[in-house]
Amino acid sequence: MNFEVFVLGTSGMMPLPNRYLTSAMVRRDGELFLFDCGEGTQVSLKMLNLKWKKIHSIFISHMHADHVTGLPGILMLSSQVDRNEPLTIYGPARLKEYIDANRRILDMYINYEIVVKVAESGVILETDDFTISAFPLHHTKPCVGYVMQEKDRPGEFHPEQAQQLGVPMGPMWGKLQKGLSITLGDGTIIESHQVIGPKREGRKFSYVTDSVYLPSIAEHVKKSDLLLCEGMFTADMAETAYEKKHMTADQAARIAKEAEVAQLGLLHYSPRYSDRELKYLLKDAKKVFGPTILTKDRMCFDIPLKD
Amino acid sequence: MNFEVFVLGTSGMMPLPNRYLTSAMVRRDGELFLFDCGEGTQVSLKMLNLKWKKIHSIFISHMHADHVTGLPGILMLSSQVDRNEPLTIYGPARLKEYIDANRRILDMYINYEIVVKVAESGVILETDDFTISAFPLHHTKPCVGYVMQEKDRPGEFHPEQAQQLGVPMGPMWGKLQKGLSITLGDGTIIESHQVIGPKREGRKFSYVTDSVYLPSIAEHVKKSDLLLCEGMFTADMAETAYEKKHMTADQAARIAKEAEVAQLGLLHYSPRYSDRELKYLLKDAKKVFGPTILTKDRMCFDIPLKD
Repeated sequence: MNFEVFVLGTSGMMPLPNRYLTSAMVRRDGELFLFDCGEGTQVSLKMLNLKWKKIHSIFISHMHADHVTGLPGILMLSSQVDRNEPLTIYGPARLKEYIDANRRILDMYINYEIVVKVAESGVILETDDFTISAFPLHHTKPCVGYVMQEKDRPGEFHPEQAQQLGVPMGPMWGKLQKGLSITLGDGTIIESHQVIGPKREGRKFSYVTDSVYLPSIAEHVKKSDLLLCEGMFTADMAETAYEKKHMTADQAARIAKEAEVAQLGLLHYSPRYSDRELKYLLKDAKKVFGPTILTKDRMCFDIPLKD
Repeated sequence: MNFEVFVLGTSGMMPLPNRYLTSAMVRRDGELFLFDCGEGTQVSLKMLNLKWKKIHSIFISHMHADHVTGLPGILMLSSQVDRNEPLTIYGPARLKEYIDANRRILDMYINYEIVVKVAESGVILETDDFTISAFPLHHTKPCVGYVMQEKDRPGEFHPEQAQQLGVPMGPMWGKLQKGLSITLGDGTIIESHQVIGPKREGRKFSYVTDSVYLPSIAEHVKKSDLLLCEGMFTADMAETAYEKKHMTADQAARIAKEAEVAQLGLLHYSPRYSDRELKYLLKDAKKVFGPTILTKDRMCFDIPLKD
C-alpha cells in the first residue's frame, strides 16, 4: 500500500517563481490529505498531474495568509470532481470564520458539504488504518503540527511453521491469523504467536511549520519515517528567527536527531535566500542530522511498508 | 514617456501551470497600476523582474475568487517596499468587506494605509495626465470594466515657423508654447496655433472581464490603443458562455471592431482549452477583427506616444 508525500511548495512568507508556498499532500491507499494551502498550491497540484479524484481532508497549521489563501481556489476546484462525502478541514479556531467570510463575500460555488473542525491537541481523525493528531507549536499566533500515524499491521503468517506444528491448511490457519489459538486433534494447543511474526509497525509522517524550536516537538514526531519541518533561516540568523517565531535549519535538524526520525525534509525557506543559497540551510542542518534533504517543489517521498 | 501593459495572467476560473489568473499591470511614467489580482498574480509579477517600488493603485473588476484571492499576498508584499502614500484599491461594493475580513482574520502585516473606493461608473481617478474610469459590465455579480485614458498633450512647437514669423527665440517662445498669443515690436499679433501643431492625442487602454457581450462596451472602449478583453470560449460555445455570463472570442472581436480599437488582446481563457487549443479562440476572433492577439502570461504591450 502506497504512502507518498508530495511537497507542493517550499517557500515561506511569499510565493516565488520556483517556490510556491509551503504545502504537502499525502497520498495513501489512493486517498489524498492536504497539509496547508497557500497561493499556488493548486497550481503545483496540477503540475504533478496526479489522477486525483478528491481530497479526503485538509489540515491547516495556522491562520496566516501564506498558509491559507489558496483554500478558496482548492475548495472551488473540489467542486469539479465527483464527491458525495463532506470535506473536513482541520485547523485553528479562526479557520471557520475565514472560510465562511470568503464563501459569503465571493459567492463561491461549492457543491458539497464543508465541515470545519478545530485542531488543537491529540487525535483529530481516526480510521481503521491510521490516526492524524495535532500538537501545539509556538508561533506569533495559534499554530499546530500534524502527525499521520498508521496503525501497526498484524505480523506475518508463516505457513511452514504451521505445517511443522501439524496444523492442517484450512479454517485453523484463518483462526491463527486472527490471533486466536486452536486445538489440534491430539489435544495440543497452538497459540497464534507460534505461527505469526511480530506486529509490523505502521508508517509515520510529521508536518511542522511555523514555530520556534520546542523540545516537545521531538516527542510528537518521534521516530517519524519522514519529518517535513520548517528550516526558514541559516544558523547565523537564529536571533531573527526567534523574533519572528521561526526556526533555523539546524534547529529543525536538532528536532530530527532528538526524535530519531528516518529522514528530515526542510521547507518554508525564507525568500531572503535565492535558490542557489538554499545550500547553506542544508549545510547547517547536515552538521546536526545527516539524513536531511532540501526539499523542492513537487519532490515526492515514497515511504515503503515496514515488513 | 512609456506606457506599457504587462499581462500577468490569462486564465479564467482557475490558475494553470502556464496560465495564472487574469490580471494586467500598466506601467506608465514609472508608476504601476494593477488590474485584478487572482492567485498567482504576485508570482507572475516577480517573474517579470520589474524594478518595482510600489503599486500606485489597484482596480478590481468583481468579487469572484479568481480575480481577488491574490490581493492578501500583494498587499503584504507591498509592505516590503518603501511607501508613504496610501494605496487605493477600487472595485465593487463588497471589496472593502473582503479586505477587512482578510486583514482581521489573517492578522496581515501592512505598514501603510489602504483606502478602498467603490468603482461603479464614470471617472474614479484623475491626475494632471490621465483619468481612469469604470463602466458597468453584465456578469453573475456586479462587475466593471476599466479605461485608462491619457489627456491630450499640447501640439508640437515648430521653432522654424516662429523664426519665419519673426518671433525671436526667448520668453515669447515660451508664451506661444503655453497657448498664449504674443505681440511683436511692429504690433503684429502671433497666435499660438500659428507655431504649434494640433493637440496630440493621449493613449487609451481598456480592460474588460467578466461579462456577456453588451453594445455599450464598444462605446466605453472606443478607439483604445489596446483593449484587453475576455474571450473565454470558442464561438460554438456561445450558449454556455451566455449562461455563465461570459463572452466568446468572436464577441470580444466584435466589440474591438465596433470600437475601432488599434489592437485586441484576448485573455481569461476557459481551462477547458489546453494551451494548444487556444488557437481556435484566435481563429474565431480574427474572422471578425484582424488585429487580435492571443495574449500569454507576461506578454508586454508597449503603446507608443502619438506624435
